[in-house]
Amino acid sequence: MATGFDLGFRVRATSGEARAATFATPHGEVETPAFMPVGTRASVKGLTNAHLAAIDPEVLLANTYHLHLRPGEEVIAALGGLHRFTGWDRPLLTDSGGFQVFSLGDLVSVDDAGTTVRSHLDGAPVRLGPAEAVRIQEALGADLVMAFDQCCRLPAAREEVAAAVERTTRWATACLAARTRDDQAMLGIVQGGVDADLRRRSASEIASLPFEGFAIGGLSVGEGPAAMRDTLATTVPHLPADRPRYLMGVGAPLDLVDAVARGVDLFDCVIGTRNGRRGHLFTRDGVVRIGRREHEREEGPLDPECGCEVCRTHSRAYLRHLFAVGEHTATVLGSLHNTAFLVGWVRDLRRALLEGTFPARAAAMAARFEAGEARAAARAAEDPEGRLGSRRAAADREERRRRATGPRDDSEDDGA
Amino acid sequence: MATGFDLGFRVRATSGEARAATFATPHGEVETPAFMPVGTRASVKGLTNAHLAAIDPEVLLANTYHLHLRPGEEVIAALGGLHRFTGWDRPLLTDSGGFQVFSLGDLVSVDDAGTTVRSHLDGAPVRLGPAEAVRIQEALGADLVMAFDQCCRLPAAREEVAAAVERTTRWATACLAARTRDDQAMLGIVQGGVDADLRRRSASEIASLPFEGFAIGGLSVGEGPAAMRDTLATTVPHLPADRPRYLMGVGAPLDLVDAVARGVDLFDCVIGTRNGRRGHLFTRDGVVRIGRREHEREEGPLDPECGCEVCRTHSRAYLRHLFAVGEHTATVLGSLHNTAFLVGWVRDLRRALLEGTFPARAAAMAARFEAGEARAAARAAEDPEGRLGSRRAAADREERRRRATGPRDDSEDDGA
Repeated sequence: MATGFDLGFRVRATSGEARAATFATPHGEVETPAFMPVGTRASVKGLTNAHLAAIDPEVLLANTYHLHLRPGEEVIAALGGLHRFTGWDRPLLTDSGGFQVFSLGDLVSVDDAGTTVRSHLDGAPVRLGPAEAVRIQEALGADLVMAFDQCCRLPAAREEVAAAVERTTRWATACLAARTRDDQAMLGIVQGGVDADLRRRSASEIASLPFEGFAIGGLSVGEGPAAMRDTLATTVPHLPADRPRYLMGVGAPLDLVDAVARGVDLFDCVIGTRNGRRGHLFTRDGVVRIGRREHEREEGPLDPECGCEVCRTHSRAYLRHLFAVGEHTATVLGSLHNTAFLVGWVRDLRRALLEGTFPARAAAMAARFEAGEARAAARAAEDPEGRLGSRRAAADREERRRRATGPRDDSEDDGA
Repeated sequence: MATGFDLGFRVRATSGEARAATFATPHGEVETPAFMPVGTRASVKGLTNAHLAAIDPEVLLANTYHLHLRPGEEVIAALGGLHRFTGWDRPLLTDSGGFQVFSLGDLVSVDDAGTTVRSHLDGAPVRLGPAEAVRIQEALGADLVMAFDQCCRLPAAREEVAAAVERTTRWATACLAARTRDDQAMLGIVQGGVDADLRRRSASEIASLPFEGFAIGGLSVGEGPAAMRDTLATTVPHLPADRPRYLMGVGAPLDLVDAVARGVDLFDCVIGTRNGRRGHLFTRDGVVRIGRREHEREEGPLDPECGCEVCRTHSRAYLRHLFAVGEHTATVLGSLHNTAFLVGWVRDLRRALLEGTFPARAAAMAARFEAGEARAAARAAEDPEGRLGSRRAAADREERRRRATGPRDDSEDDGA
């Protein structure tokens, strides 16, 4: 049994449960809290490596299930592994495929050794369990790899969730036993749905195993923000303080603030690129539906505090035009901005931790974002088609301008 | 009547009819021969400005007809013109909409003052003639603008082509009379189909007018390479040597070599981005259909002599994977490489002109490209699905490797 890569996790600053930390990987240091953009099929949708280099994410993620199907891990291994294959030599993480087989594939059977699903591509049977997940992830060669777990679709009966928790622990042990590489760190995954007892049980069991880090799975599947907060509050205290904690599939700006405050270090979500392609663009003042007519003549940038290529280069009016005509580049710029925003948003939270301003800063970020969302909702109710440069929209713009040019906290200066 | 911007066109080197030249615009100097990427709706499809800055094209093009429909020239003017709208402060060219109304719109009527078409978007009537084309292009504010011309769909009766030539001359005069800005250079357009007499007549008439440059329109519409070559041979000698010559809509690598040899300075075509999205990727050894299985494990770059981000960063195997799974980034990388390739290909021809090696270099570039195309055609016949890493494909790869590592002309070192 291999011992796994020692991440050398070090906490640099704390504020309540929240912490800023660093850890080492074979491809460089990771500073947390950090948002990890998702490159499901070995590419962050719409972005090129030059875009990603400018965003400078701490870690990129890729999906084992998808890469197993195409091009197959043997192709990637033959080409030197995932880093060489993608041309990205910074830290990478692969998931285990557990989430995908229980959500994307057509499940055929589950037994103690793993699962059989029908491929979502062609219906061919795919066998995936702890042994396969470890073997495939070792062939892919990411820095951080995940144990194979059993997810439940919620709502689910308590017995079903309990069975998944038990199986997830057995599979976690099997994953640790199966690994042969010492240059990868493996993270165990806690399950348990939204049941506090089962979450505590799963967290205690998984945390007792010699993983290099721990993840909270089975959330962000429609349980709602209150259930997510409660589950985090139940789970995180049972995870070791000296190893990274990763909340899988979370993503939305307010959830990120909340989870960082509860002591989570790592996040991933496809929300950036998915919403970006649709023109739902994140700003510090909430989500902007950039295709709406009200943006037709707006000269200012999408988010004046964002340092990404999109906000440095383009007006809202230009972005609105590209989305309105369905231009190819619109999907790229939307994905680029949203990815830069989410990486920068969590990086801002890290900075606040290091500067000792976390509670006030996190609260201010969340309040400002929520206020923007409330104004947008009011505007949408008043003007569903977004055709009017309504008084309210004009007032909002004025307020943004005033805020952007007025005195502000130094820590806001370097967004993303 | 405004006088137009003095381009200060200067020929720096010649070889037979071919020439390397420079000219000035309000947004910087242009070095020719040059390939101008097309940003139809104020965006080169799939690319961001950072990509374009790395490719460093001499001129970018945008389409008057499309921008007139959406977002409308008044929106772009209100936002400071096309340069500020796109965030691109290097030279821009707009076409006149002539080609689009005769090819894309549903033509309702043509009269001496212009045309009425039904919009290809919603069927609404659009009026476009010399007066409108000049007014719209002045509102857009590109550095180089085009006269409004009448295209013929080929084949066409001689009388029809002759009538279009006459009308194009009248409209050219009207365009010159209509302009009011002195900071834009206007290029007249020669028509005449593939009829040598009519081409000569049109070239003489248009060349007698005080345009700052001249364009050859009505080609690259399916007339075939021989007819294109003959028409260029007939037309170019009638265009003034002291002003730029622009061959509209041409694009394919072998056509570019041929047209530069005949004294053309400027080119545009959507072939780079359109083929790039489909995975038909240009290399110095012909077009690579990157989605074919034969590329599944190819470690080398698409074109080892290309300096673009794609060729610097990725293997053919990675590109093949992205295209095979239909990844969003595939379309971006394909567009990026092909655009860089075409800009670099014509820049290589310019360099050969300046270095005095043009005839041999142009012939060698064309021969190598043609030989690669012939090998690919043979391979496709032998292996239509592209599933085999056939002996022939392996032999080709070996030959490319040998050529890439052997001694070579210094002028090949800096592709794009």
